Amino acid sequence: MTRREAVDLWLETPKVRNGIIAVILLNAIVLGMETSNSLMAVAGPLIVGLDRLCLSIFVMEIALKLYARRSAYFRSGWNVFDFAIVGIALVPAGQGLSVLRALRILRLLRVVSVAPALRRVVEGFITALPGMGSVFLLMGLIFYIASVMATKLFGAAFPDWFGTLGVSAYSLFQIMTLESWSMGIVRPVMEVYPEAWLFFVPFIMVTTFAVVNLLVGLIVNSMQVAHSAEEVAMTESYRDEVLDRLRKIETHLQKGDQNSSQ
Amino acid sequence: MTRREAVDLWLETPKVRNGIIAVILLNAIVLGMETSNSLMAVAGPLIVGLDRLCLSIFVMEIALKLYARRSAYFRSGWNVFDFAIVGIALVPAGQGLSVLRALRILRLLRVVSVAPALRRVVEGFITALPGMGSVFLLMGLIFYIASVMATKLFGAAFPDWFGTLGVSAYSLFQIMTLESWSMGIVRPVMEVYPEAWLFFVPFIMVTTFAVVNLLVGLIVNSMQVAHSAEEVAMTESYRDEVLDRLRKIETHLQKGDQNSSQ
Amino acid sequence: MTRREAVDLWLETPKVRNGIIAVILLNAIVLGMETSNSLMAVAGPLIVGLDRLCLSIFVMEIALKLYARRSAYFRSGWNVFDFAIVGIALVPAGQGLSVLRALRILRLLRVVSVAPALRRVVEGFITALPGMGSVFLLMGLIFYIASVMATKLFGAAFPDWFGTLGVSAYSLFQIMTLESWSMGIVRPVMEVYPEAWLFFVPFIMVTTFAVVNLLVGLIVNSMQVAHSAEEVAMTESYRDEVLDRLRKIETHLQKGDQNSSQ
Amino acid sequence: MTRREAVDLWLETPKVRNGIIAVILLNAIVLGMETSNSLMAVAGPLIVGLDRLCLSIFVMEIALKLYARRSAYFRSGWNVFDFAIVGIALVPAGQGLSVLRALRILRLLRVVSVAPALRRVVEGFITALPGMGSVFLLMGLIFYIASVMATKLFGAAFPDWFGTLGVSAYSLFQIMTLESWSMGIVRPVMEVYPEAWLFFVPFIMVTTFAVVNLLVGLIVNSMQVAHSAEEVAMTESYRDEVLDRLRKIETHLQKGDQNSSQ
Repeated sequence: MTRREAVDLWLETPKVRNGIIAVILLNAIVLGMETSNSLMAVAGPLIVGLDRLCLSIFVMEIALKLYARRSAYFRSGWNVFDFAIVGIALVPAGQGLSVLRALRILRLLRVVSVAPALRRVVEGFITALPGMGSVFLLMGLIFYIASVMATKLFGAAFPDWFGTLGVSAYSLFQIMTLESWSMGIVRPVMEVYPEAWLFFVPFIMVTTFAVVNLLVGLIVNSMQVAHSAEEVAMTESYRDEVLDRLRKIETHLQKGDQNSSQ
Repeated sequence: MTRREAVDLWLETPKVRNGIIAVILLNAIVLGMETSNSLMAVAGPLIVGLDRLCLSIFVMEIALKLYARRSAYFRSGWNVFDFAIVGIALVPAGQGLSVLRALRILRLLRVVSVAPALRRVVEGFITALPGMGSVFLLMGLIFYIASVMATKLFGAAFPDWFGTLGVSAYSLFQIMTLESWSMGIVRPVMEVYPEAWLFFVPFIMVTTFAVVNLLVGLIVNSMQVAHSAEEVAMTESYRDEVLDRLRKIETHLQKGDQNSSQ
Repeated sequence: MTRREAVDLWLETPKVRNGIIAVILLNAIVLGMETSNSLMAVAGPLIVGLDRLCLSIFVMEIALKLYARRSAYFRSGWNVFDFAIVGIALVPAGQGLSVLRALRILRLLRVVSVAPALRRVVEGFITALPGMGSVFLLMGLIFYIASVMATKLFGAAFPDWFGTLGVSAYSLFQIMTLESWSMGIVRPVMEVYPEAWLFFVPFIMVTTFAVVNLLVGLIVNSMQVAHSAEEVAMTESYRDEVLDRLRKIETHLQKGDQNSSQ
Repeated sequence: MTRREAVDLWLETPKVRNGIIAVILLNAIVLGMETSNSLMAVAGPLIVGLDRLCLSIFVMEIALKLYARRSAYFRSGWNVFDFAIVGIALVPAGQGLSVLRALRILRLLRVVSVAPALRRVVEGFITALPGMGSVFLLMGLIFYIASVMATKLFGAAFPDWFGTLGVSAYSLFQIMTLESWSMGIVRPVMEVYPEAWLFFVPFIMVTTFAVVNLLVGLIVNSMQVAHSAEEVAMTESYRDEVLDRLRKIETHLQKGDQNSSQ
């Protein structure tokens, strides 16, 4: 066993795994405390120090993994995910890039790639996505068409809600979630364009129907997956056995016939 | 092969299909750019020209299809759909008919009739509709009855919300989507008619229950469709084979009996 | 056949049924037109006259049915429903009882008892209810407990929302539908009682979870009903046949044994 | 039979059970009446007296159960639940502890532990929870991460909504329920940070998707539970019988072979 293989094995030992999970949870608490001004006033340097410590442990772990597996490291989607999440934290966030500092908390998502139970849930989410591709594409189409129409029809009178394509898309997303769609948006619009409901009510119906179809598709899919696993295998093996035995009996009887006719 | 058949075949070649999809996507971008005043100021004539070019390609395609298939063209629902969508764009939208100009973007829906994956989703939607006919009819009935009642009961005091049948139906649709139903509508109404909740709370319960039933019906339907496809066919063929073999064995044994008794 | 039986049969003929449906639809239009002040100003007496005509036809139909079936008439729930709906319209609605006049439109619900498709949907709704009895009971319990608690905790400071048990129950229903629960109710309450979220957030979670369970129960129920209908019967008959044939073959073979051993 | 066993049996008799249910319902009415100031003014001492009477009956029942079963009493989760609920009422709620007084109504929940139908529903709820553990954990993770990010990004400008971790979590819960998320929160935030939708729209999508997945998981689980109960058992026994009989026939035929070859 080369040293690289030994490092690889050591990184996969439960002790190291649990240690990493512990560091992630510690980091979660530290990053949570960073949001409190009073705590930062009291123990600011300690908190920042602990955060740096956690970060260095993550960097070291990734460095070791890279050393152990080299380019094979990037073949796993979860490794790329870890690399990106830790990488964000290393970008210097000096001058006003508070967004980058806020993204540091994403490091906590590492717990998903480390804990198998969470990993399975997320992988379940992701495998459900392609089956819904066509419906998502259709939703995108509906949103694009509706955004263009809303911008052309109501953009001049309501620039805050429908002034540009982007603003319209956001407003239509809000309307799809049914948040203040009538009192907040459509009733005011109808005071200028009394026929506006002819656009918005069908939009709500079509998008709601599409969302419901997504949901139904998801349920039916999960159902079939749940079925196939064991039950189907058992049914198949049972059927094969029945047919096999019947065939044997038939052959047997035919052989008997030939014997007696000889 | 006549020239008409040749045209028909040529229109169905992947090259032409993909070309049409490309034109639709180009048209989508062009129509999107038309909503931006700054882009129109810079490249207005070019954008309008490109839109006209796309439109002429669509018109030519439909003209060729009409030439190739004649009246058979209108037998397919998707062709009628294409014809109507492109037809809208040809109506002169001169004086203030901005609605017609906005409807042009519907042309983008042509991508649904051309791309098989999207086409299947939409056809799935449409085939799901008739099974829900009775529930839709019942919903219409509930809305009509509730609109008449709301107009009679609250129309005098709240003309903006329940003044006429149409306005009441819109307000009840808003209430069914639960948007601002209480804070926006029912609490103000209850200040004048304290018993108004006796009308609105049951209305919400009944319509929500009906919507839930629609959803359940849809799921159960999809489930059965998903089942029947392959699985049922396999089960049937398996059962037929088992019964067939059993019958043969029986016949065999009976023949053996008759032989031995002769 | 007595005259009463003849009347009963005549009432069930398609001609009479469709006639009644036509009268209901006419009545629906008439009652809709009654909500329009301008139409009433032009043709008020005609509209009221038509309404009376429809009503008398309904009364006559019910009188004939009562004559034909006597007390057996009230054994069908749908007949009691018809009787009550038509009866409401006969109560003199003279002085300000506008509610009774508004209830007349409920007559339109008669179409449900006459049209078999709608009748089946409503009967489906009703048969689904008992299976959800326990969950409804639990919901009632949760609402009663939450109303008492909300009244005791927040009633003094917010009499409009939580002043009495009834007002609290209404506010909690609004919160359960998620309408303006936070911005409209809980945030203002939290300005007086900062810990109020400890009551409202769990309330939302528990009631939402109960509603979801209702939904799931409904889907699972419908699923099993849909299954049992034909499929299960076919499976049963197939299994019986297989076992029957196997038994016959066995008996046959044993008889053969006894024969040969004799 | 010792006296303790006799007491235990007597407590489980239908007479005692129904008596306890009756006391619970009486207590429910009494506690409801306590919320009405006018009723308290008229019959305050009577109401308080009845409440004390109900409470003493509960205390006596629990005392008897403790006497009968001793430490075994606490082995049932439902008994611990009863003990805690009744115990709350005995804490002296003298000076301003109105919360404790409000918690007394929780005693009504005893009806759940006594009535088997309700007990089964609640046990169904509870058994459904562990299967959703991973998704709940993931939801908690998403909420923690999103709260930290929201506090860092928007806390300075909107201290009322995102000032601390707790306030952010509450606001994000409101946004997840879609209540006033856009008009109430995100649009105002976007006036200061125009890119805020990049945080909130994905948050809504991810949490909604997670909730939908919870729902789907619940449905699929219930489905499988509903299936397994009887149907699967019947299928298994049928299959066993078929295979058994086929095996017998084969053995029979082979024995026949050996006989005839001898």
